[in-house]
Amino acid sequence: MFFDNASTTKMDEDVLRELVEFNDKYFYNPGALYENGRNVKSIVEDSRKQILRLLGANDGRLVFTASASEANNLAILGVTNKSMKKILVSVGEHPSVYNTAMELKTRGYNVEFVKLSKDGCVDTLDFKNKMTEDVGFVSIMHVSNETGAINDIKSLVEIAKSVNPNVIFHTDGVQACGKIDVNLYDLGVDLYTISAHKIHGPKGVGALYIRDGIKMKPIIFGGGQEYGYRSGTENTMGIYMFAKVLEKAISNLRNNKSHVCDLKEKLLSLLGQSGLKYSIHSNNGCSPYIVSISFIGCRAESILNMLSDDGVCVGNGSACSSRNSGNRILENMGVSKVEIESNIRISFSKNNTLEEIDVLVEKIENNVRTYLKNTSV
Amino acid sequence: MFFDNASTTKMDEDVLRELVEFNDKYFYNPGALYENGRNVKSIVEDSRKQILRLLGANDGRLVFTASASEANNLAILGVTNKSMKKILVSVGEHPSVYNTAMELKTRGYNVEFVKLSKDGCVDTLDFKNKMTEDVGFVSIMHVSNETGAINDIKSLVEIAKSVNPNVIFHTDGVQACGKIDVNLYDLGVDLYTISAHKIHGPKGVGALYIRDGIKMKPIIFGGGQEYGYRSGTENTMGIYMFAKVLEKAISNLRNNKSHVCDLKEKLLSLLGQSGLKYSIHSNNGCSPYIVSISFIGCRAESILNMLSDDGVCVGNGSACSSRNSGNRILENMGVSKVEIESNIRISFSKNNTLEEIDVLVEKIENNVRTYLKNTSV
Repeated sequence: MFFDNASTTKMDEDVLRELVEFNDKYFYNPGALYENGRNVKSIVEDSRKQILRLLGANDGRLVFTASASEANNLAILGVTNKSMKKILVSVGEHPSVYNTAMELKTRGYNVEFVKLSKDGCVDTLDFKNKMTEDVGFVSIMHVSNETGAINDIKSLVEIAKSVNPNVIFHTDGVQACGKIDVNLYDLGVDLYTISAHKIHGPKGVGALYIRDGIKMKPIIFGGGQEYGYRSGTENTMGIYMFAKVLEKAISNLRNNKSHVCDLKEKLLSLLGQSGLKYSIHSNNGCSPYIVSISFIGCRAESILNMLSDDGVCVGNGSACSSRNSGNRILENMGVSKVEIESNIRISFSKNNTLEEIDVLVEKIENNVRTYLKNTSV
Repeated sequence: MFFDNASTTKMDEDVLRELVEFNDKYFYNPGALYENGRNVKSIVEDSRKQILRLLGANDGRLVFTASASEANNLAILGVTNKSMKKILVSVGEHPSVYNTAMELKTRGYNVEFVKLSKDGCVDTLDFKNKMTEDVGFVSIMHVSNETGAINDIKSLVEIAKSVNPNVIFHTDGVQACGKIDVNLYDLGVDLYTISAHKIHGPKGVGALYIRDGIKMKPIIFGGGQEYGYRSGTENTMGIYMFAKVLEKAISNLRNNKSHVCDLKEKLLSLLGQSGLKYSIHSNNGCSPYIVSISFIGCRAESILNMLSDDGVCVGNGSACSSRNSGNRILENMGVSKVEIESNIRISFSKNNTLEEIDVLVEKIENNVRTYLKNTSV
């Protein structure tokens, strides 16, 4: 049973099964001049337009990258320049934003970090204090990959632009895209990052939305693909599958979300009846796809391994390479050390069932009790 | 019929058909701590070791990227630093090396370009003259994507290291890997770039070999995957397929090469009998996979489109985004303007047949004669 869907998801098999035919018809290089090449180019361009439409963009470009990490790097390293007196980034960001901001610091930029509230969202008061008119670039994520906390991006953009109309606002939307409503026009962001493998698409494809008029330098130079922003032969199969899975995700968004809400509700209800001692770090307003939870006194890695032996995958709050940011974020929210050490992340997808929740809670109960019994001896 | 295999190749269907099963067993994030995650991590690490072994590396690391373009960028931008007084790059490089070198120039580096000989190889005398002891970094490709010319990398490395033992030598091996013998230990290079989609693997995967002891900075920051050199969730399917197709390419290297030599020989023999006026820019010692040819008086794009209408794909010498370097390279070799304007590239794969060569030459003959007749009227 897989409850680490914020980390990655299983690919939709129907999309995968199309690849043999795709390869027959469309293996050509989209940069080639002959008709077969132009046909593949059309698929790439149609996928681009489709994704922009699905995300409610009324202008701008979509640049395909190899990952959301690359898209976040392109947004930050490609847009910031030394004329920007101050850069604002939230403490809650994914490492691909946070560590890139730290890289900017080593390059001599003035980077300030916006604190989180207890609920895992950006602290609006702290943001208002730090959002001075000399801020040239802001990066704040839509949905936290650690807690599921949803930032009110529209309001934050309004605050930022009211102070400095020229500020460039970037949002990492990896945990939002295809899971909660995303309308780029309505949000008002200048740059927005998305990823395919979080919504049952392939690993190796991400994208960055870039509003019209935003000036950007590439971070990968070469043949000038992707409007010159990102050279390298296009991952045509990946791009095609990305548009396919996003289309599916968005047309089923309400059903999937409702189903996942039921999963979360059942999980919390059963845990409430279990008598286990735990704390939840995913607030009421957060994405139902992610539940950050601490079973007090249980070392997270041990519980994770015990669950793994039982065939249940959950995320770990601090150790794995893609989540070594857990401590930073929970600490900033004011979560205690004891809770952080025992923090695991349960994250759902459309593929999880209500029956699995029964098994999940049973396995958690058994393992937590076993752990506590063994360590109290 | 597809004769543009230097641009990209059709994926091996048997490898593609494995993906449904791969997705079932191994869709997990290789960064995850639980057993299923660790199993995928093992596949990535096994693929890495296998590729290093297949390329005859006796030390060093392989860093997976999204493309050879990214690998070339990582080699150049990641390794060069301002303590290097001079950078040497050949004029014959792919845009992902050439344009990245130009970017270094705009950042204040002293970049010099090594000329090509008439045969398309690096001019050894010019290299010896420019390879002074203040050169910190060299980038010279193994096999030219334009002409198939093979540089004697081993000798060039020896020359470079005899002048400055600390010089770092990078080679773009995209058109060599899996097609001609490549032994990294024997070549003596410090960095070597390879790509999957040129050898019947997927688009979206490349890699950079990095000899032990080479200091490098990442160009994409984040979760610290790939030894910290390249963050972002690994393209696990792509990596798995890359190792698979390279294994196949190298175990069939002699047979494939011999077959492709027959294709080239038949092409040149039939063209010789045709009475057409043409010139060849691929010398005798070059890779048999690529034939650069000019049908004097015929605008390349027209011939390419006429062949495309006949169902035959060949490469164009100057226009398509991945080959807009054609002019620079042929000009430097001393090819005339008339020949450059009429230059097309015919590039083979193991999948082409001797029967296809008959049709190719027939279509070329017809279209060249039609073109010349129509334009002489």
